[in-house]
Amino acid sequence: MQKKPWPLHDVRHWLEPGPVVLISSRWQGRNNIMTLGWHTILEFSPSLIGCMISAGNISFDMIRQSGECVINLPDLSMADTVAKIGNCDGDHVDKFAEFGLTAEKCEQVHASAIAECHGSFECRLYDDALVDNYNFFIFEVVAARVKPEPEWPQTLHYAGGGLFRTDGEVVDRRKLFTKVS
Amino acid sequence: MQKKPWPLHDVRHWLEPGPVVLISSRWQGRNNIMTLGWHTILEFSPSLIGCMISAGNISFDMIRQSGECVINLPDLSMADTVAKIGNCDGDHVDKFAEFGLTAEKCEQVHASAIAECHGSFECRLYDDALVDNYNFFIFEVVAARVKPEPEWPQTLHYAGGGLFRTDGEVVDRRKLFTKVS
Repeated sequence: MQKKPWPLHDVRHWLEPGPVVLISSRWQGRNNIMTLGWHTILEFSPSLIGCMISAGNISFDMIRQSGECVINLPDLSMADTVAKIGNCDGDHVDKFAEFGLTAEKCEQVHASAIAECHGSFECRLYDDALVDNYNFFIFEVVAARVKPEPEWPQTLHYAGGGLFRTDGEVVDRRKLFTKVS
Repeated sequence: MQKKPWPLHDVRHWLEPGPVVLISSRWQGRNNIMTLGWHTILEFSPSLIGCMISAGNISFDMIRQSGECVINLPDLSMADTVAKIGNCDGDHVDKFAEFGLTAEKCEQVHASAIAECHGSFECRLYDDALVDNYNFFIFEVVAARVKPEPEWPQTLHYAGGGLFRTDGEVVDRRKLFTKVS
């Protein structure tokens, strides 16, 4: 299913619940993909996301040099791929080819999105103030696209040691919300 | 059930999956509690966590002044409390009393933990370099305690608009993990 545009100020709907994501990047003609569980929303508008990307990853330099990446949201059906990418070094392998993933052209960045993922959030490096000390990148989401269905995909949440938790029921507490967010 | 010590380097087991947490703080004899979904693990050891705490919250000043807080992990049974605390201002209400929560003495910080929560992670402010620009606090977890059961509680993951997702099944991909973490 084709992804459709998603409001930039509401990227939190997909990332605030804390799913594992696949970060795709491109630099000097090479593509890479890494798994990431260490991220947080930082602001609605501009749409800011903080990501701790270990300097041991090939992706670290590719993202720092290009100043771009794509945060892709995989679902439960991609659990094997997520685990394998997290255990595979990027300097010897084209991960799109290796894992049968389809590169999808982006609107705002040169990196490719992953067509199989439920959503793709195109990012530009917004502030690298904490990269040297903490490997912490602050990105601005500059384009967001999400598949219209399912409305509530089962994403993956990494608990360490090769174990993930997937999503369960939606818990509706709208009646208790008097504030906007 | 009483909480028991949890290894500081493995706090990620509880927080990396992205649950909503309740942050308790204490300053000048006052206690406060706020809900938070914008956090990420930053390092295993020292055990570092980054939290974006909006400057509009009373907790912001209390945590900055005291340099301490407790990250408490609620489960599904506390969904009403989590929602109500998120929609309640702290300057008029003692939230422990208002919401029938039990203050639990901490080991390393002056703030109280919330006895009803599944886990409590006592934090000291480690680096405030990004507080002025992004309201982003870097904490070191200096004590961690978790209830021994259930092994996999159903936590809450906030998706905005009064809707949470709770945890579903555990997805075991240990056979695919060749790396340590």
